[in-house]
Amino acid sequence: MRLERWVPALVWGRAYDRATLGGDLMAAVIVTIMLIPQSLAYAMLAGLPPHVGLYASMLPLLAYAVFGSSRVLAVGPVAVVSLMTATAVSRIAEPGSPEYLAAALALALLSGLILIGLGLARLGFLANLLSHPVIAGFISASAILIAAGQLRHILGVPGGGDTVLEVLPALARQWEAVNLPTLVIGGATIGFLVWVRLMLSRLLMRIGLTAKLADALAKAAPVVAVAASILAVAGLDLAGAGVAIVGAIPQGLPPLTVPPLDAPMWRALLPAALLISVIGFVESVSVAQTLAARRRERIEPDQELVGLGAANVAAAMSGGFPVTGGFARSVVNVDAGARTPMAGVLTAGGIALTAVFLTPLFFHLPNAVLAATIIVAVLGLVDITAMRRTWRYSKSDFAAMAVTMGVVLGIGVEAGVLAGVALSLLLFLWRTSRPHMAVVGQVPGTEHFRNILRHAVVESPIVLTVRVDESLYFANARYLEDRIAALAAERPAIRHVVLMCPAVNLIDASALESLETIADRLKAAGITFHLSEVKGPVMDRLKRSDFFDHLTGQVFLSQFEAFRTLDPEAAARAMATGPGAPVSAAGGAPPSQGGGGR
Amino acid sequence: MRLERWVPALVWGRAYDRATLGGDLMAAVIVTIMLIPQSLAYAMLAGLPPHVGLYASMLPLLAYAVFGSSRVLAVGPVAVVSLMTATAVSRIAEPGSPEYLAAALALALLSGLILIGLGLARLGFLANLLSHPVIAGFISASAILIAAGQLRHILGVPGGGDTVLEVLPALARQWEAVNLPTLVIGGATIGFLVWVRLMLSRLLMRIGLTAKLADALAKAAPVVAVAASILAVAGLDLAGAGVAIVGAIPQGLPPLTVPPLDAPMWRALLPAALLISVIGFVESVSVAQTLAARRRERIEPDQELVGLGAANVAAAMSGGFPVTGGFARSVVNVDAGARTPMAGVLTAGGIALTAVFLTPLFFHLPNAVLAATIIVAVLGLVDITAMRRTWRYSKSDFAAMAVTMGVVLGIGVEAGVLAGVALSLLLFLWRTSRPHMAVVGQVPGTEHFRNILRHAVVESPIVLTVRVDESLYFANARYLEDRIAALAAERPAIRHVVLMCPAVNLIDASALESLETIADRLKAAGITFHLSEVKGPVMDRLKRSDFFDHLTGQVFLSQFEAFRTLDPEAAARAMATGPGAPVSAAGGAPPSQGGGGR
Repeated sequence: MRLERWVPALVWGRAYDRATLGGDLMAAVIVTIMLIPQSLAYAMLAGLPPHVGLYASMLPLLAYAVFGSSRVLAVGPVAVVSLMTATAVSRIAEPGSPEYLAAALALALLSGLILIGLGLARLGFLANLLSHPVIAGFISASAILIAAGQLRHILGVPGGGDTVLEVLPALARQWEAVNLPTLVIGGATIGFLVWVRLMLSRLLMRIGLTAKLADALAKAAPVVAVAASILAVAGLDLAGAGVAIVGAIPQGLPPLTVPPLDAPMWRALLPAALLISVIGFVESVSVAQTLAARRRERIEPDQELVGLGAANVAAAMSGGFPVTGGFARSVVNVDAGARTPMAGVLTAGGIALTAVFLTPLFFHLPNAVLAATIIVAVLGLVDITAMRRTWRYSKSDFAAMAVTMGVVLGIGVEAGVLAGVALSLLLFLWRTSRPHMAVVGQVPGTEHFRNILRHAVVESPIVLTVRVDESLYFANARYLEDRIAALAAERPAIRHVVLMCPAVNLIDASALESLETIADRLKAAGITFHLSEVKGPVMDRLKRSDFFDHLTGQVFLSQFEAFRTLDPEAAARAMATGPGAPVSAAGGAPPSQGGGGR
Repeated sequence: MRLERWVPALVWGRAYDRATLGGDLMAAVIVTIMLIPQSLAYAMLAGLPPHVGLYASMLPLLAYAVFGSSRVLAVGPVAVVSLMTATAVSRIAEPGSPEYLAAALALALLSGLILIGLGLARLGFLANLLSHPVIAGFISASAILIAAGQLRHILGVPGGGDTVLEVLPALARQWEAVNLPTLVIGGATIGFLVWVRLMLSRLLMRIGLTAKLADALAKAAPVVAVAASILAVAGLDLAGAGVAIVGAIPQGLPPLTVPPLDAPMWRALLPAALLISVIGFVESVSVAQTLAARRRERIEPDQELVGLGAANVAAAMSGGFPVTGGFARSVVNVDAGARTPMAGVLTAGGIALTAVFLTPLFFHLPNAVLAATIIVAVLGLVDITAMRRTWRYSKSDFAAMAVTMGVVLGIGVEAGVLAGVALSLLLFLWRTSRPHMAVVGQVPGTEHFRNILRHAVVESPIVLTVRVDESLYFANARYLEDRIAALAAERPAIRHVVLMCPAVNLIDASALESLETIADRLKAAGITFHLSEVKGPVMDRLKRSDFFDHLTGQVFLSQFEAFRTLDPEAAARAMATGPGAPVSAAGGAPPSQGGGGR
């Protein structure tokens, strides 16, 4: 039982049969065809030789199949993590050098260990620090950054720069050096891939294929561009005309690798590894959840951390680089018939066959085709809809998204994530730091209490009742002190203050002290302080403190009880009046039952 | 009106009369006597010449009297801010050098501008990032650090080190160099001051003084130690015996000073200035609030920022260093009869008279007496009670406190504050990241719904109702997805999921997306998703989104309505049964009404 908890393969492996194999095999064939150009391209994006992409698509898939909790997630190199790898590794090593490859291995190992550690310590909640708007902003901006960075391969110029503000002017300065055959190949590939994406699946459906299969085939179409471009470059000797090609790729299975034990390098990579782990996990687990929900399966987030961690450790030990679950690839996997992680095992087998037998075929593959594949893939990640939706729903969430995007594009990916996280935390604190508080009175003829500004209610001249609509914690504890002090100072005649707590789910130590301070200060002014409608768990905790030494009044189970006890005369007046009559002692606002008032 | 909003002196100044003057004058005399040794001592603690302490106790008091919102707060040098000044300034200049003094001025100016900026921008809520446990831990640890740092003056040895772990061994290594007369003076002063603190006010009350006056006189007692030690050192020529003395103090009023325009220095001081501003403000505003509440006065936190900022700008322009409101001093001020900020103006006058006429008297004042004053003052700040109370109330708040203390003592004051703030944020997110969620059913014979684990309720085989007891935001959005997916996966027969939201005060953009994802995933599994009891403001906001394109079900005003609509048969069964009967369709837990369950 215990072992099965951590090794999901023991569960699905036991029930495996021939019928399942058929679906898994079909899916593996299509995913392999889709993965070959992607793995080469994402290795290039990460600044690594193309075969590293193939290596990262074998053992990691096996490891995830054993330890991952999703049945159908397709793991491997993905665009955003490859960009983050390039950013992190190029800071400490020269692209193309053996140190660069070694650092990429170390990054994968670190990231794997972090993921496994978070999973075993059940710290997956840390991923929640990344709010949806921050992630959406980060992915969109990264996509733009990636596309801008790949333009140099389409133009056939050296390029340069880390941010969009540096990359685009650098390209513009080199317009005279543009290699025309490269541009033609790159442009044609982009055109073809966009056509495939927009039209092909509809075309295939018209000739009788099912929608799912048509989509899956359309996703595999880049392999056609790869084959055609290889034939064109080889046949017309375009490499001689200046078209950059992939060149010789080492043939065979990945070697066993161990990242070097270099403490300063590990320390330098640690922050990047943490970010890559968290971002990779967040993206992957959301794909896994979506696919699992369709079939009422469960994803264990902690087990998912272990599965992705194992995949990254496997990448580090087999000459690869950081991997995670890919969205498009996983959807193709499911649609093509995958039922178990065996599809991943078979995909790894397909990539292994490619690495052993087919790599010589890629000699004439132009880099421009790989760049075109990347550009078309990532531009689909720029989520304009999410930006518009967030703007409409919440300006502060949009601010977090916009800052994330701005910093990613203008400064860098890691600074962008950190700025986004910091801002969303601050904005959340700001929002909850001034909780909604309402002075309430009794609705005539009922035992209900409502906002005196929104309803015709009975108030007491000697009892001030304040309802607070938020948990009380350090960010709003002092505001509570200020507000109650102000409300009490405005009403010189009052003798009791009641804090009504039906929406208070938590009172932390800061808020506890503030409540004690409020009680002490009111006492000094000759006012008694009471609570009403405190939730059970909150009350249990208050009983563990010395709060009741400070509380001058009582805790009432219901606000009606409080009102009846503290000002029987006003309560009786309220019960004697029919509902809706204009009875507000304070002569407050006109009756209003609409507008979401309580 | 507008001007009076920002210049409170216009309000209290207009109503000023002779009766008020009497109280203010009496208070000013006692506070001046208390402030003279303190200002000299805190200047020494900040690594500055003693007269700088006097300078910081003149113009800043006038500025606060004009702009501050508290009637009775006594502003000036305080221990913790002086320690932070020493830490920040000694990083960029050598103590005793002109650059050191210039940097202290710059720090006061920066801090003043930050405070004024925060006040005008109404950003005082930023101070809320410091939770009470973090502040309490910070103050306690700073007090220990300050006391340890002053021991060298008591022993008459050079000392050294920044953290407690460095200071104490450094002292131990120099035990042979201890200056005996210094140790006798220091030890005797500590003994006297402790005796004063523990016994004197009781003694004075026994001879007929009122409690308040006795306390105020006891607070002024250090001046006796100062006078006695000056006489002893001068009479016995102890300076010749190696007792370090204050020496010549420049006589006269402060010069007009302008901190140097040195951009790198300002940048280096900025983080420290920010921390000093926030810590100084938090401490000061809490004193001001407590004293104001006694008399039902109001403190405007934003105006208080402006007042303290003006005091610091005044300090920078008159040869001083960062100041804020002091706790003990303000209490003495009130108890001795202060009624308006005029007491502060008169105190500044008292200090000015001291600076002009009395500084030669301090020539023979031993540093050991100043150090003893500091030690006795700060040891009262070590708040063991707060530690015990926090430990009992909340382990996670205690963790934030303990980490703050540990880092302040072991690494430094600034790192300590930052670690405490980061940890309390993380802990808050962690606490709210797994909100309390309960599957609920209908209480027989009523329209109420309660936790199926705590109460005997009627459940429906086809409707799953989940109540969530927390606002929904990025830190718990994904947990919500996971929990609902898990609960739905456990119940293959259900056709409806209702999320009951009576305690949801906020749904941010992340949670909105999670709700949409939940609706989409449930739809894919053939389950309809509904909401019930959504608060007005939350509903208003949802209407601005495209949530209702995803929501497959309805939003019910009450949970009873939802249950009656979705499973009329189960609702009818519940209404037909008497309360308390064992009717749970799921045959769940035995009936229980206690334990704070809802």
